[in-house]
Amino acid sequence: MRNIVLTIAYDGSNYHGYQEQPGYITVEEKLRVAVEKTVMHSVKLFMAGRTDKGVHALGQTVNFYSDTNIDIKNLPKVINYHLPDDISVMGARYEDDEFHSRYSAKGKFYRYKIYTGRFRNPLDHNRVYHYPYPINIEKMKKATECLIGEHDFMSFMGRHAVVKDTIRIINRIEIKEVDEYIYIDFYGKSFLKNMVRVLVGTLVEIGNEHRDENFMQEALEAKQRTSAGPTAPACGLYLIKIYY
Amino acid sequence: MRNIVLTIAYDGSNYHGYQEQPGYITVEEKLRVAVEKTVMHSVKLFMAGRTDKGVHALGQTVNFYSDTNIDIKNLPKVINYHLPDDISVMGARYEDDEFHSRYSAKGKFYRYKIYTGRFRNPLDHNRVYHYPYPINIEKMKKATECLIGEHDFMSFMGRHAVVKDTIRIINRIEIKEVDEYIYIDFYGKSFLKNMVRVLVGTLVEIGNEHRDENFMQEALEAKQRTSAGPTAPACGLYLIKIYY
Repeated sequence: MRNIVLTIAYDGSNYHGYQEQPGYITVEEKLRVAVEKTVMHSVKLFMAGRTDKGVHALGQTVNFYSDTNIDIKNLPKVINYHLPDDISVMGARYEDDEFHSRYSAKGKFYRYKIYTGRFRNPLDHNRVYHYPYPINIEKMKKATECLIGEHDFMSFMGRHAVVKDTIRIINRIEIKEVDEYIYIDFYGKSFLKNMVRVLVGTLVEIGNEHRDENFMQEALEAKQRTSAGPTAPACGLYLIKIYY
Repeated sequence: MRNIVLTIAYDGSNYHGYQEQPGYITVEEKLRVAVEKTVMHSVKLFMAGRTDKGVHALGQTVNFYSDTNIDIKNLPKVINYHLPDDISVMGARYEDDEFHSRYSAKGKFYRYKIYTGRFRNPLDHNRVYHYPYPINIEKMKKATECLIGEHDFMSFMGRHAVVKDTIRIINRIEIKEVDEYIYIDFYGKSFLKNMVRVLVGTLVEIGNEHRDENFMQEALEAKQRTSAGPTAPACGLYLIKIYY
């Protein structure tokens, strides 16, 4: 049995998130079934980062063990044959037995896309958060400064999350404006449930000047979800890359 | 009655082209019905450029006459309320009575998008032509030179087109590589049916070295469709802008 690692991309619009759940259509189930049809035995998939309903991925990473003798270079194509058009294997490689998509990960890169054009763009439907109002990028940039480093991000964790340790490290946040789009890039080792979306929701409240620049710092210190801004829509979020 | 001009964007994937045809789902029909619901009377829409089944638009232009007293600034929003998610009015303005979306146009800009990554990208499904093979951009660029200016483009016209005059002017063609994408931009006053797609299909035959660099010149001179390359898929084509 060899440890096979796949890089996965998907349009999350039609899925109830990545993780398999009975009674829901999920990315993991589609992927598992496609892998099983390919390698001709049942598999357990280990993934790098759970994504919520409607969240997209370009660089989700998954590993599983198999004795298949399909050439690793052709494996993505064969699995893709069994996948719907909105999920695709973008790469495959072998790793040592100890490699685990989640536990071996050194960092993750998430991008959040906001579209600020006045009218909805049909080619971006379900692919961006449409926010057609004035927004002050400089204030948003400033508000990210207090987030860098190790902090207790409890205020930015979605309700009903079950973790004891809410301390996380954010290495970098970059905000770029490209035409009528705003990209907010988050780099960190790992993130709490909904954390990127709540951070974005809070940044938007500062950018639109409903809240002042101290709001982020105050939210961080409060350590309660109600002190932060709303959860930004899932459709703007992309898991871009997992670093190993 | 005032002459109202709309800029329209659409994802063409689910439509049998722009132009209304009985028995088919078309962009024009959806748009006309939405405009009629908005202005409360029947309208005739005049469009700048017909697009084929599956072709997208960011800057299609349409005009119609109406005595509606809805504020022109709010008109896109009201019409969009009656449109499906894959069609959107992106702007509205008044023009003189003589203005006609097609006859007043000074030029058109079409972009063709090719994705050369090895495996299909689900976030580009129906939005690009996936061509996962080696392609020589420099040879393609060179092959476009003979197309610039006024020529008889009969070889690049789709079959069953009904026009007598196949002479057209191409002002500029630009080929850019951005990561794993190739953008081929065409600027001209007007184009024949399928012309951009047949030009792209011919350029790909040169880029992949199935044909040599003279193939474009020979195809142009032959003045018959069978001398040019295949028609590239509709899903890679975007009507970006109409110049007035």
